[in-house]
Amino acid sequence: MARPLLECVPNFSEGRNPATLAALRQAITSVPGLALLAQEADTDHNRSVFTFAGSPEAVLEASFRAVAAARDHIDLRHHTGVHPRIGAADVVPLVPLQNVSLEQCAAFAHKLGQRIARSLGIPVYFYEAAALRPERQRLEVVRRSGFEALRELTLHDPSRMPDAGGPALHPSAGATAVGARKFLLAFNINLDTADVAIAQQIARKVRASSGGLPHVKAMGVFLASRGLAQVSMNLTDFEVTPLAVVYEAVREEAARLGASIVGSEFIGLVPAKAIGQAASVYLKAETRPEDQILERRLLIDLID
Amino acid sequence: MARPLLECVPNFSEGRNPATLAALRQAITSVPGLALLAQEADTDHNRSVFTFAGSPEAVLEASFRAVAAARDHIDLRHHTGVHPRIGAADVVPLVPLQNVSLEQCAAFAHKLGQRIARSLGIPVYFYEAAALRPERQRLEVVRRSGFEALRELTLHDPSRMPDAGGPALHPSAGATAVGARKFLLAFNINLDTADVAIAQQIARKVRASSGGLPHVKAMGVFLASRGLAQVSMNLTDFEVTPLAVVYEAVREEAARLGASIVGSEFIGLVPAKAIGQAASVYLKAETRPEDQILERRLLIDLID
Repeated sequence: MARPLLECVPNFSEGRNPATLAALRQAITSVPGLALLAQEADTDHNRSVFTFAGSPEAVLEASFRAVAAARDHIDLRHHTGVHPRIGAADVVPLVPLQNVSLEQCAAFAHKLGQRIARSLGIPVYFYEAAALRPERQRLEVVRRSGFEALRELTLHDPSRMPDAGGPALHPSAGATAVGARKFLLAFNINLDTADVAIAQQIARKVRASSGGLPHVKAMGVFLASRGLAQVSMNLTDFEVTPLAVVYEAVREEAARLGASIVGSEFIGLVPAKAIGQAASVYLKAETRPEDQILERRLLIDLID
Repeated sequence: MARPLLECVPNFSEGRNPATLAALRQAITSVPGLALLAQEADTDHNRSVFTFAGSPEAVLEASFRAVAAARDHIDLRHHTGVHPRIGAADVVPLVPLQNVSLEQCAAFAHKLGQRIARSLGIPVYFYEAAALRPERQRLEVVRRSGFEALRELTLHDPSRMPDAGGPALHPSAGATAVGARKFLLAFNINLDTADVAIAQQIARKVRASSGGLPHVKAMGVFLASRGLAQVSMNLTDFEVTPLAVVYEAVREEAARLGASIVGSEFIGLVPAKAIGQAASVYLKAETRPEDQILERRLLIDLID
């Protein structure tokens, strides 16, 4: 049986200070058996994002150490940035990669959140699939009004009480949102037009929030560097709404509006299954190539 | 830097005796850190094929142990089957999977072959990318006339002398062909016609041997179970001639002949890169999704 693998993509409220970024990285890579897959820092938003994966034990330990490092190195009282945030370690999503269910990820999130609250004195909100209150499935509800206002609200407003720890926020580290969600696939499609209104109309057509495809978030943007319009998308459940379905929906709507696709982009890493499903559609596969991918088998067998 | 990974796909001249098949399997799985990916036995051909992968050290050790087990359990003097063969362990190809070149695989093949000749008393021929004589790049040249005739030929015909050990074959285990080759992708395309002549014509059009696509072997066959014609192919270098190129060539030629594709099949495992390249073509990717596949990164990072 394949060993379970999780991914974690924590967001921290620091995107500028090299010493803090190094401390966060060190906290994560100090855990053996973990793969640090990506590290990004945004100086405008003053945020950083790390992507790592491994066994549940390794991922939970690395997440905990990173939240501890964030508490020790980031003081939200002196943090500025345009992105809404409630904590030094702002959001910590756990993502199932292999042989683990979303429900199990939610249970891991609860375990991690309890440890953060208990050992680090940082109150925790559980969100998305780990939410304990239905409204907290939406991260924007959890983060509403941000750190500064939330400091007061948790003391008086029962609807804003943390799920673990608290009620007072940690004075410098605030609170942390710990969640479980499916893999997020960032996929953009470029059009042969500079007319951003066309990309916006396509985005409205395909996105879930306006009645389009389930688990698709989309917006139309103008890429100044290339002088063309782009449909920028997040697929939040590529098994329910696969890549090829999204691509074909965009292609059809673009054609209806007199535009066509010139190219597409994947941002970050893409699960083999998502790619395999797309190849399967266009090659009319009767087998399931997404389940025949050599590297998936090696990953299962070689690290067992 | 990613750890190098090899695959080995040895063929043995035994496809019926369960005790012998168990001994071969045991020889392979006795090596730690190895992934046994597939095991197939063909009772008509009286042959079996094992597919395994791991570090060069693990793969070379498992290959050696399997050849030794074949020598101990298979007596070619009592072997019958329709497939041409020269040895108990008949062919042992090494295949580069990750961070290893075909040239390095050839060097590993030479090391393995020398050990087989020296320690097991089985003469070895090197073939394909490991060939020491140009004509031996072709396996059919090495195996020509089979075990029974080769026993005499190696003693008198300089052109049939083994590359390592010999000249006499091992009395019961014969000789072994050890080679290095690229990953072989078995890909079949089914047509909406029962007319096998159409499949045969398409095969002639696309295969390398009749001036078609490089590194493509193809034949037209009739699938009695489904009452349709199939183009059955081996792609021997999918990086030079990718899946989508083959698929589109078959589609075009079929259309010219008034047929169309109803489906395709992948036999065995498929490298993520091959699948990623196909998805990339049909999704018009401007990034390189084949290099963004999560599992490829995890495989590199988690077993390093």
